[in-house]
Amino acid sequence: MQPAHPHLWPITADVDLSGRLTIAGLDLAELAREYGTPLYVFDEATIRERCQTYRAAFSAHYMPTTVAYAAKAYLSPTLCAILREEGLELDAVSAGEIAIAQAGGFPPSAIHLHGNFKPESELRAAVAAGVGRMVVDSLDELTILETIARDLGTRQAIWLRLCPDVATDTHPHDQTGHADSKFGLDVASGAADAAIQRAVASPHLDLTGIHAHAGSQLFDPAPAAAVTTFLVEIAARTRDREGITLRELSPGGGWGVAYHPGQEDPPVGGYANAVVSALRVGLDRYRLAPPGLFVEPGRGIIARAGVALYTAGPRKTVPGGRTFLAVDGGMGDNIRPALYGARYHAALPARVTAPPTGPVSIVGRYCESGDMLVETVAIPDTAWGDIVAVPVAGAYQLPMASNYNAVGRPAVAFVRDGSARLVRRREVATDLLRMEIPDTTASPSD
Amino acid sequence: MQPAHPHLWPITADVDLSGRLTIAGLDLAELAREYGTPLYVFDEATIRERCQTYRAAFSAHYMPTTVAYAAKAYLSPTLCAILREEGLELDAVSAGEIAIAQAGGFPPSAIHLHGNFKPESELRAAVAAGVGRMVVDSLDELTILETIARDLGTRQAIWLRLCPDVATDTHPHDQTGHADSKFGLDVASGAADAAIQRAVASPHLDLTGIHAHAGSQLFDPAPAAAVTTFLVEIAARTRDREGITLRELSPGGGWGVAYHPGQEDPPVGGYANAVVSALRVGLDRYRLAPPGLFVEPGRGIIARAGVALYTAGPRKTVPGGRTFLAVDGGMGDNIRPALYGARYHAALPARVTAPPTGPVSIVGRYCESGDMLVETVAIPDTAWGDIVAVPVAGAYQLPMASNYNAVGRPAVAFVRDGSARLVRRREVATDLLRMEIPDTTASPSD
Repeated sequence: MQPAHPHLWPITADVDLSGRLTIAGLDLAELAREYGTPLYVFDEATIRERCQTYRAAFSAHYMPTTVAYAAKAYLSPTLCAILREEGLELDAVSAGEIAIAQAGGFPPSAIHLHGNFKPESELRAAVAAGVGRMVVDSLDELTILETIARDLGTRQAIWLRLCPDVATDTHPHDQTGHADSKFGLDVASGAADAAIQRAVASPHLDLTGIHAHAGSQLFDPAPAAAVTTFLVEIAARTRDREGITLRELSPGGGWGVAYHPGQEDPPVGGYANAVVSALRVGLDRYRLAPPGLFVEPGRGIIARAGVALYTAGPRKTVPGGRTFLAVDGGMGDNIRPALYGARYHAALPARVTAPPTGPVSIVGRYCESGDMLVETVAIPDTAWGDIVAVPVAGAYQLPMASNYNAVGRPAVAFVRDGSARLVRRREVATDLLRMEIPDTTASPSD
Repeated sequence: MQPAHPHLWPITADVDLSGRLTIAGLDLAELAREYGTPLYVFDEATIRERCQTYRAAFSAHYMPTTVAYAAKAYLSPTLCAILREEGLELDAVSAGEIAIAQAGGFPPSAIHLHGNFKPESELRAAVAAGVGRMVVDSLDELTILETIARDLGTRQAIWLRLCPDVATDTHPHDQTGHADSKFGLDVASGAADAAIQRAVASPHLDLTGIHAHAGSQLFDPAPAAAVTTFLVEIAARTRDREGITLRELSPGGGWGVAYHPGQEDPPVGGYANAVVSALRVGLDRYRLAPPGLFVEPGRGIIARAGVALYTAGPRKTVPGGRTFLAVDGGMGDNIRPALYGARYHAALPARVTAPPTGPVSIVGRYCESGDMLVETVAIPDTAWGDIVAVPVAGAYQLPMASNYNAVGRPAVAFVRDGSARLVRRREVATDLLRMEIPDTTASPSD
């Protein structure tokens, strides 16, 4: 039997005859007891299904599509190995993400390095490692990258990140495609054209494509379609003015997912259709040869595959009637509610079919009033020690996790076909102290 | 010569004859080049001066005052050793903070363990270690703590955290003293009285005091005074009803600091005077013997002692005229602007007296539009590689730092009397991978 709101849980979610929630055939509450909490559980089948869904949705309409996973949503060597098996490339934004990807067997040639400011040392290391595409964000960066490529005697394939002026209805923090943005080269000021001319003229740079991004957690495909149209227009203008063909276009990612029962999962097919339609209309209008299309989902691949498991603690009803249920995680492992006002769902996996006794606000253990995980959810009564599951926990939670209050970050388990494996151990106090140098005779080098 | 806005910089800040900003006699830009960026520099003299100011401000009016530093603002073994030398006690909220404090030589007997949900294992470890006060937040916790104390054959000194209904004008995330809060035992529901009665009746618990907290980053002492009045009233009622004297009262911390030129530093003396006056009025009214007073500054001790140093990268002016300056840190090491809309100041330490050429928005390197460090500040033109200093960086930045975008967390240096020592090394890619378990044969135990 499926759990309530099945679209919020991994695709293998099931409720057994005793009313317990399982993922990949494994009892979630049991996993919590075995590995401790907070525990993040990722369902491998859901990750693979999402990879396949994205690839199929685009390829059905436009064969030369590459799906590149946006690493910032969540990255680990274990995940990288799965993504590679599913034929995805990778969007990284730092030397650290490249290192994690390489630890997972991801070839640098399948990595695109994005970011508004890549420090010079990271740019140099990435060129030396042979990253597939360097996504240049500014004229300053173009200058430095050219020097690095010349120094290293290589010709680096690059994209230019451009800044269209596309408005979205998402959270202001998630808007990236509007003109008042730190990201990309804007057209109006001439920066985009200047970068194209300089890249084309450089013997050390190979301008293979252009990239733009409309924003994150979008439920309406129009901004992504508008960004695609914008990219085709720039490609046509580049052909007309510079006489070169841009072989690759990347309208970014940002397609949304449902986080709570009030949201429907927006269909990937509709998003793919809107982007490809905009692309085809543009290619026809400007009589351009079909370029490689790169789409960059992060959340869309990983969010639903993850479930966060916590242990319940004190419960208190305050004057006015609100009941607070505290759990042993919170803003340290999931800052999205405090940072974006993100709403979440929750359930008790050991009693997932039990009738709820009333609404509770699920708060974390951190010393801060903003430490709220789930603003309101109806669940059965809990006792100290019960396990609480928060679904759609796969994206932008662990990567933004902190050691606030000196609490170690969660353990992570991957589950598949009835078996679980710990892929990241829990962080403990000795880990928190490991970088400290109490000795006064320490060397100043780091 | 003092820098502009001296109240935002450590007390040893000085501008030398060539217009370079120094702290403790050390050139900040040089420190950045020596240790790399992002670098957090803490001025030991400022930490000690703040400890002494807090102790003196209260002791001048009320001798039996203990200043306990709120560890969550920033904690390291190095800091703990300084705090201890200055005669402070410590507010911790987790086993991790206790471990860091012990690594810094802080005796458990001088530690108070706060927190709305301390997992049972952490409660047990803290009682076993001999923490000085356990600050009980809920009836559920009281039950568990009593069992633990009985199991361990000890009598644990406790405070009860109470929830007054005190409104403040601070950010909603920082409000903790209002009734609709996850923190504390409220009076109206009877929870506070029930906890007092149970604590008094228990042979395993020694109810030495009560605690409440009005909120954080307060510029008006009225809420702290109101909390103090509330605590005295509860102490009087406890004497009258239960026949016991509460020997310790803790009206928490939360006194604000200036972060940007538009804010004046609120005087600690005014805060101390308001709290002590409220205390004395209450003691007189109820004819109570003077209890020990515990005040718990965190930000007030550490914020101004810290300076964050970054390396500048690309600079771009977008249509509409805004100029973005990117630096090599951002929301990964300082999430306060994104999380609370916190405003900061910035300067170029190598040219601190140079006239500004115009306002810039200082943004971070992280792949998110909300990654803003300083919304607007007037500084001179910058080149890629220049050092940028952000003052008042000591509190709630490093403790909430993440590895977002797989970027390692900053190095930390303490400076004193012309010499610097690295007290925390920079986090590198191998650190990020250390807890990952790529081996599929890994044991499930963690």
